[in-house]
Amino acid sequence: MKAKPCKIGIVDTMFARVDMAAFAIDELKRKFPHIKTVRYTVPGIKDLAVGCVLLDKKEHCDIYMALGMVGGAPIDTQCAHEASIGVQLAKMKLSKHIIEVFVFAHEGKDEQDLYSIFEDRTRKHAVNAALLATAPQELEKFAGMGKRQGRPDAGPIRVEK
Amino acid sequence: MKAKPCKIGIVDTMFARVDMAAFAIDELKRKFPHIKTVRYTVPGIKDLAVGCVLLDKKEHCDIYMALGMVGGAPIDTQCAHEASIGVQLAKMKLSKHIIEVFVFAHEGKDEQDLYSIFEDRTRKHAVNAALLATAPQELEKFAGMGKRQGRPDAGPIRVEK
Amino acid sequence: MKAKPCKIGIVDTMFARVDMAAFAIDELKRKFPHIKTVRYTVPGIKDLAVGCVLLDKKEHCDIYMALGMVGGAPIDTQCAHEASIGVQLAKMKLSKHIIEVFVFAHEGKDEQDLYSIFEDRTRKHAVNAALLATAPQELEKFAGMGKRQGRPDAGPIRVEK
Amino acid sequence: MKAKPCKIGIVDTMFARVDMAAFAIDELKRKFPHIKTVRYTVPGIKDLAVGCVLLDKKEHCDIYMALGMVGGAPIDTQCAHEASIGVQLAKMKLSKHIIEVFVFAHEGKDEQDLYSIFEDRTRKHAVNAALLATAPQELEKFAGMGKRQGRPDAGPIRVEK
Amino acid sequence: MKAKPCKIGIVDTMFARVDMAAFAIDELKRKFPHIKTVRYTVPGIKDLAVGCVLLDKKEHCDIYMALGMVGGAPIDTQCAHEASIGVQLAKMKLSKHIIEVFVFAHEGKDEQDLYSIFEDRTRKHAVNAALLATAPQELEKFAGMGKRQGRPDAGPIRVEK
Repeated sequence: MKAKPCKIGIVDTMFARVDMAAFAIDELKRKFPHIKTVRYTVPGIKDLAVGCVLLDKKEHCDIYMALGMVGGAPIDTQCAHEASIGVQLAKMKLSKHIIEVFVFAHEGKDEQDLYSIFEDRTRKHAVNAALLATAPQELEKFAGMGKRQGRPDAGPIRVEK
Repeated sequence: MKAKPCKIGIVDTMFARVDMAAFAIDELKRKFPHIKTVRYTVPGIKDLAVGCVLLDKKEHCDIYMALGMVGGAPIDTQCAHEASIGVQLAKMKLSKHIIEVFVFAHEGKDEQDLYSIFEDRTRKHAVNAALLATAPQELEKFAGMGKRQGRPDAGPIRVEK
Repeated sequence: MKAKPCKIGIVDTMFARVDMAAFAIDELKRKFPHIKTVRYTVPGIKDLAVGCVLLDKKEHCDIYMALGMVGGAPIDTQCAHEASIGVQLAKMKLSKHIIEVFVFAHEGKDEQDLYSIFEDRTRKHAVNAALLATAPQELEKFAGMGKRQGRPDAGPIRVEK
Repeated sequence: MKAKPCKIGIVDTMFARVDMAAFAIDELKRKFPHIKTVRYTVPGIKDLAVGCVLLDKKEHCDIYMALGMVGGAPIDTQCAHEASIGVQLAKMKLSKHIIEVFVFAHEGKDEQDLYSIFEDRTRKHAVNAALLATAPQELEKFAGMGKRQGRPDAGPIRVEK
Repeated sequence: MKAKPCKIGIVDTMFARVDMAAFAIDELKRKFPHIKTVRYTVPGIKDLAVGCVLLDKKEHCDIYMALGMVGGAPIDTQCAHEASIGVQLAKMKLSKHIIEVFVFAHEGKDEQDLYSIFEDRTRKHAVNAALLATAPQELEKFAGMGKRQGRPDAGPIRVEK
């Protein structure tokens, strides 16, 4: 898998209970050693969108990752919604992809399980970000294949024709 | 049905469990052979809006289709909402139609049924996109006719006057 | 009631089960014969906002009407929400009124009743659109009067002072 | 209380069951006789945001009030949400305050009570609007004081330190 | 902890039942004596976003804090949602951080407890704002550490590897 030179901006939070950026940086270093990464940590998920905008002003990355954890209370789901709308606004402003990697506290059956979701989702999306930035046609091979991040792929629906 | 030359941009996802773009491309090839299509695959539905914006920068299509599947968990419905708001933002940014074709996992009574919804909705909306781009007055014939994509038409309400 | 020359853009859908635009056009022809109307049909409610923007590019109407029906499933209510946010975005983009006329499938107690809501709401809002475009001070007479479209007016609250 | 010359734009609706603008205009006339007011009536709450934008084009007011009533059905709450998002968009577009005064039908225990909420909320917010436009430092005196409009102030939380 | 000269804009409300801005100003004075603060009080949380925009026009601060309290009724949660979307819009408009500090009435088990949430959340976020403006790399040390404002830190997830 060849990759043209590029720079990925990784914005993460103090709120998350796992160092998500470390997974992304490690994954990219292993699989896309020519890709440069820059990191910017903000307090929580609502700060991610403008964090990408501010990082873009300084670093002009090819693509961004917005990494965050959503708490377990009902109001946290609303906060995630606001954060995600912010990310959509930021994408429009930058005309660049921002790969949103959110993990919800209630997704894991225990902390070990939750941790594995954090790692799997972040690593897989780091690869997606790298491919979108350097070899987007690679993603077409997986179109409609039920790819999942954080858990095993659902796979394509098989039907009798 | 005559169609003036045009180009349709099709943005689809790796998350979907059916190759939705293939339906759209096949339908357009059969019924609108003069229309060119370009395809761009992104990870999931939240990436569709900016995917259309990025494709527009390179390809300047006349119209876009945003094809995606929504998972079955409650949080997925919220994600679809954010993705759709993103699509509304992208339409405003581009001043172009983006025909949103979303299929929800819970719509089908089984996988075979769900698959048929994917196919029917995508094919019908491909025709809508082609007509909007090349012969928009054709749609007026169906105004208020209760047209549906993914399932049979509801048809117009018939009342005693 | 005198009206200065003006043009009203009417955007309607194939999804609706009633020809809403026909009501609007008929009402305007009867009561505001000097007002010109142009019509543009799109597939569904999510296409209305950009439909107004595209019609505005060609026709430069004074005001727009966005006519649509909302289905009866819970997800349809979310779709209406996205469509309405789109309409708010379009109003900001155009700095023009877009009178949103949405009828929800669950509003009628049967199809006959639902049909009457379609007709009443669309006709009354066509008058509102015409007045906003040509004689906005007429609306002030009804300020705070509990006017309703689709059902009888609620009327003003009467209190002992 | 001195006020520098200014103009307040008041946008209200035909849907409301109380003449809210009359309260605002009366309150301003009594307490801020040097402030000019202009009024613009639109059909319903979703028309308020663009109503402010259109009024701003003609009148260039210092600040706006968006006065509306929200119906009692669940869908009305969603409509209020869309109207409020529109108002947020309009504030960003104009870079001006728009004091949103919404009264929900379900707030009052009867019509008399509801009427008093309409009056109290509108009058108090008219004062807020006037102060924001002419003497914003006056509001700082009430910061964190649990001020309410429509009902008695909640007052500040008193704690043992 | 060294801080380069900077100015923080603090926007607070009359609705809140605690003088949140006082906590922020006190915290900044103690820990970042070289940072200047400016304050602007608005009626309620929906006025915070445009409050930041208006303060930015006059004061050109490096970063903003939007301090507010959310009432205990269901509709207040929707209002908070609209206020937060407004704040996201304002961040995009200014390309600056706006640290949103919202306290919900239902968060505290009694008024004393609620008061302590107000104080803790506001003071901690004041530090966050100061660091983002003057030494953003300091936040990276806490990335993924489960930092919380208003209550004790959740801390990082510890797993067997």
